Amino acid sequence: MPHNTLSPIWLSYVLHFPTRDYLSNPYPALGETISIRLRAPVSASIEQVVLRTFPNGEQQLTTMQPESEEAGWIWWSAKLAVLEHRVPYRFAIQTKEAVWWLNAAGVSQKLPFDLFDFKLLADTPPISWLQNAVFYQIFPDRFANGDPSNDPQQEALPYQNWHRQTFSWGQPAPHEPGLLPFYGGDLLGIQQHIDYLEHLGVNALYLNPIFTAFTNHRYDVCDYFHVDPVLGGDEALVDLAQALHAQGMHYILDIVPNHCGIGHPWFQKARQDPTSPEAQYFFINHEEDLYESWLGFGSLPKLNYRSSELCKLMFAGEHSAFRYWLRPPFEADGWRVDAGNMLARQNDQQLGHTIIPQIRQAVKQTKPEAYLMAENFFEASAQLQGDQWDGVMNYFGFYNPLFFWLKPFSQTAVGWKGKLAAEQPWLTEVVLKAWQETLAAIPWALALQQFNLISSHDISRALTALGGDKQLLCLAAVIQFTFPGVPCLYYGDEIGLEDAEIFGSRNCFPWDESSWDQDLLNFYKRLIALRKRHPVLAEGAFQVLYGAEDMLLYQRVLGDEHVLVSANRASQPLPPGELLLPEAAFPASATFEGLFSSAEASTQGSRLWLPELPTGAEIWLQKS
Amino acid sequence: MPHNTLSPIWLSYVLHFPTRDYLSNPYPALGETISIRLRAPVSASIEQVVLRTFPNGEQQLTTMQPESEEAGWIWWSAKLAVLEHRVPYRFAIQTKEAVWWLNAAGVSQKLPFDLFDFKLLADTPPISWLQNAVFYQIFPDRFANGDPSNDPQQEALPYQNWHRQTFSWGQPAPHEPGLLPFYGGDLLGIQQHIDYLEHLGVNALYLNPIFTAFTNHRYDVCDYFHVDPVLGGDEALVDLAQALHAQGMHYILDIVPNHCGIGHPWFQKARQDPTSPEAQYFFINHEEDLYESWLGFGSLPKLNYRSSELCKLMFAGEHSAFRYWLRPPFEADGWRVDAGNMLARQNDQQLGHTIIPQIRQAVKQTKPEAYLMAENFFEASAQLQGDQWDGVMNYFGFYNPLFFWLKPFSQTAVGWKGKLAAEQPWLTEVVLKAWQETLAAIPWALALQQFNLISSHDISRALTALGGDKQLLCLAAVIQFTFPGVPCLYYGDEIGLEDAEIFGSRNCFPWDESSWDQDLLNFYKRLIALRKRHPVLAEGAFQVLYGAEDMLLYQRVLGDEHVLVSANRASQPLPPGELLLPEAAFPASATFEGLFSSAEASTQGSRLWLPELPTGAEIWLQKS
Repeated sequence: MPHNTLSPIWLSYVLHFPTRDYLSNPYPALGETISIRLRAPVSASIEQVVLRTFPNGEQQLTTMQPESEEAGWIWWSAKLAVLEHRVPYRFAIQTKEAVWWLNAAGVSQKLPFDLFDFKLLADTPPISWLQNAVFYQIFPDRFANGDPSNDPQQEALPYQNWHRQTFSWGQPAPHEPGLLPFYGGDLLGIQQHIDYLEHLGVNALYLNPIFTAFTNHRYDVCDYFHVDPVLGGDEALVDLAQALHAQGMHYILDIVPNHCGIGHPWFQKARQDPTSPEAQYFFINHEEDLYESWLGFGSLPKLNYRSSELCKLMFAGEHSAFRYWLRPPFEADGWRVDAGNMLARQNDQQLGHTIIPQIRQAVKQTKPEAYLMAENFFEASAQLQGDQWDGVMNYFGFYNPLFFWLKPFSQTAVGWKGKLAAEQPWLTEVVLKAWQETLAAIPWALALQQFNLISSHDISRALTALGGDKQLLCLAAVIQFTFPGVPCLYYGDEIGLEDAEIFGSRNCFPWDESSWDQDLLNFYKRLIALRKRHPVLAEGAFQVLYGAEDMLLYQRVLGDEHVLVSANRASQPLPPGELLLPEAAFPASATFEGLFSSAEASTQGSRLWLPELPTGAEIWLQKS
Repeated sequence: MPHNTLSPIWLSYVLHFPTRDYLSNPYPALGETISIRLRAPVSASIEQVVLRTFPNGEQQLTTMQPESEEAGWIWWSAKLAVLEHRVPYRFAIQTKEAVWWLNAAGVSQKLPFDLFDFKLLADTPPISWLQNAVFYQIFPDRFANGDPSNDPQQEALPYQNWHRQTFSWGQPAPHEPGLLPFYGGDLLGIQQHIDYLEHLGVNALYLNPIFTAFTNHRYDVCDYFHVDPVLGGDEALVDLAQALHAQGMHYILDIVPNHCGIGHPWFQKARQDPTSPEAQYFFINHEEDLYESWLGFGSLPKLNYRSSELCKLMFAGEHSAFRYWLRPPFEADGWRVDAGNMLARQNDQQLGHTIIPQIRQAVKQTKPEAYLMAENFFEASAQLQGDQWDGVMNYFGFYNPLFFWLKPFSQTAVGWKGKLAAEQPWLTEVVLKAWQETLAAIPWALALQQFNLISSHDISRALTALGGDKQLLCLAAVIQFTFPGVPCLYYGDEIGLEDAEIFGSRNCFPWDESSWDQDLLNFYKRLIALRKRHPVLAEGAFQVLYGAEDMLLYQRVLGDEHVLVSANRASQPLPPGELLLPEAAFPASATFEGLFSSAEASTQGSRLWLPELPTGAEIWLQKS
């Protein structure tokens, strides 16, 4: 990384990460006093180190004490009383010439913005199963058809001349107005393939919507309290949940609180009768027969959380949807919340910041270990400060920078015919800064709970997005599995599935193994196994060590364990070479082995020697 | 400013400011559609310009149209529907190679953080009198003694062995435990000097607390509904208010909703009787006779806004304190809210973000043109998004960068014995970035309402802080009066007052004119007159043009009017020279005259020729 030429070089070797290496307890209880540490090179010209906290909005400064010296480092220490639910902190490092501020985004002379403070959350223990989780996302209609008898028939829907039709597995449906194509995938189909998932190594499922609806994606929910009969109904979910839990697997469901389907009885009643309680659940102008809907799509009428009755049904009541499915016999392990960025927001009525904390409370009361994760394609830091989501589908903070590094930037928006597009990918320095600042904007405890993906039902499959380049796909997957947060594999990516015409990324899983990319499958199995085996990948500090031109290098660190990750996006290999990295705080002399190449890298003091790096990424594990 | 070497130079010449030069209405009503413009050099290699908005949390992109060409610039235009109370926007500028984002903080390739979007506020018209306001802050006990008969007598207070004593005007009181020294300043004293204020040119007063209390600063309020008798009581305020308003002057009062004084009857009752309603107004542990107080100062018990009764008394009720004083016969024109950063925040009970909007509502309902401004020494951007304060005492966004440019950085905190201090002042680039980012973090409509100061009752007088250097004081004042926001002169600064022993910055105003610095007084009169005469200084865009080593240069622009401000902090003059500034969009050929030096500067196309710049600052006005 280019250093700020105005600051002494050694400033970038002053280290604090909000992990248990630097905090006596990264998950403190409210009222607890913890120790907080920072280390600096013995040779640094430091006059004093001061901990800056901000209790109740007022600056508090605490002199840190030099505590111990160890292998060229001095550890500075102070006590920190955790008296608020969210405790921001930063450090002041005084030299003779200047006072420097160190926060989660780095070092500056300028007084930094609060946004990038390190942030502790009180009474927010980690979700224990999540730390070890590797998710697998399934679009239920397209994974496996376990029970053909429940496939949708050629039935007309009660409105808009829509009709549903089931096609043969994987056969493209014709593009006809009003045709809602189905392929018969169901919950029994998933249950029948738990073995497959176990062999792959994933241990958590994210299921796209399964509540009763009309379309195959089911974001047009028409009953929040029943599993769609064409998926097998409630009984099928009970069976699947039991089977998953019996194998130590977890699962989360997809809920759509932002809107429902036009076919929902609430909306039907609301539209007919302005005096009905249901009329308050929506934004309906009865005189002109107009109503608000998701981005103007009339089939998805927007829900109105000013209605306390709706709040009761959705989250506040004892039997509300957000609570109901977390309990026996379903015992879902959490939620993926659709359109989390728009929830309870409608022009002059901006209630998201008050409704989401109530949803959180309902969920955590019902099941403290539930994972509450939301869709949000944009900067979500305002929703990720401890009182709203545990995590988001990490397009903004993880996926975008990665894919804008691997291919030219492009972006679009629903309802806009244009496209923003450039010839060049982002500079490596820009990508690293985007990652670091997005991580810095949220509490580290939540950074570790972000849902990191490279494919989903809403975007192209990674292999397609990367122009079919398998080396780049593996690069992306390596970064995904070694980046702070929870990785999620999108069904079929592991066997080399690409987007298909008509289907896009929502293909039918090809169960004929002869079509599978077995190399890729084995690659994924190793990656998944590695991720589960090394807690450093779940909890360790994330430290960028180098980034220039087509290469980047970072490490995850926890205790004595260092895992290095190198990536080369160029089509040419990078020659062997040595990097001087005092900020890496490597063990004095260590040898690392490449997980995939079995090549060797080694450290000598602050020097890291790397062998030739082909296109792609490598994970360097310390040899014991 | 150093350019990002990764971006084309011309990107810094792409201009948008949220003023009426670029917005058809910078103060739109909710529901209004406005035109929004941006201009770029004709020669720039732009493929498209796109307006990015974020309605209800979802990205919306709108293609901007090239509208007209004018003197080497193309104006791009789009419509923007203002449907939320706070509407953020930014621009995407697509070149062949890359897509660049322009927001209020500048240009980046990285997807920017929401914090720095341009931000419009709906239904938030400017406070008309504030645009033209130059404030004068008075610490009432020390400005003028109009009625010696009401001076505090040697009376013992009902607790803590405190006693009050009035000393002769300007004579240092002995430092004795328990002694509360007074000098007899009162409201009649202010009224008697309205002529002085008018000649000076100020047209608004900020009075430090005047409600009944025990100390001379009165932050230990013991009655929110009466003016302290030693200041002349309620009648004196009625008289003063009438006299001020008769002269077209406005005034704001200082209220302390965070805590009250230990002598307040509410607290006395609360402490004695745990079952009293008043016990709920505080945080009292009766068993151990402990209570929460402002930063641990037991004389200032913290108020507890979980009590709805307290909320009623302070702001919610029809006769609440926040409303009472805005009405006849007092008709105060607004509030300065003490400890606005800590208000309604106490450890696990963080209510500030819900209480402050209710205070705002109460104030604006009572008097739409009232100015609601708060003390906040720190980054206040979370409180400055349209739903809380109109402005804050601008230590963080204005004063700190300016004074850390003019003298070495130092900072401390209440209750900490240490001091953060460096030998060097901030680099010019750091100062400019601090100003620009703090401005960028809040809506421009609020940037124009920030309360910019260089002295106050809580910090050293500017002349003292600057080591008695009058040239630097004038430099600071010039920047204060030409910076976005409302300038406030601290009583006595205009005649050269410095901090005094015992008094600090709370000196008695010396009415013997022979002790006045008449040059300084004249300097201030010219500055004040200039500020009131040029709307560009109240409303114009703020554009940094140059900053390096010891010099900085910016302009304020509105329509055809450009006001340039140059500053040189070095003790040596800067030689004459020429700057190439295409981003300045100067008139093709113009001559500027220095307000103080009468020297000439001139533009020729993008070139600005400046004469020698001595230590200090100069304001360059276009010659017609």
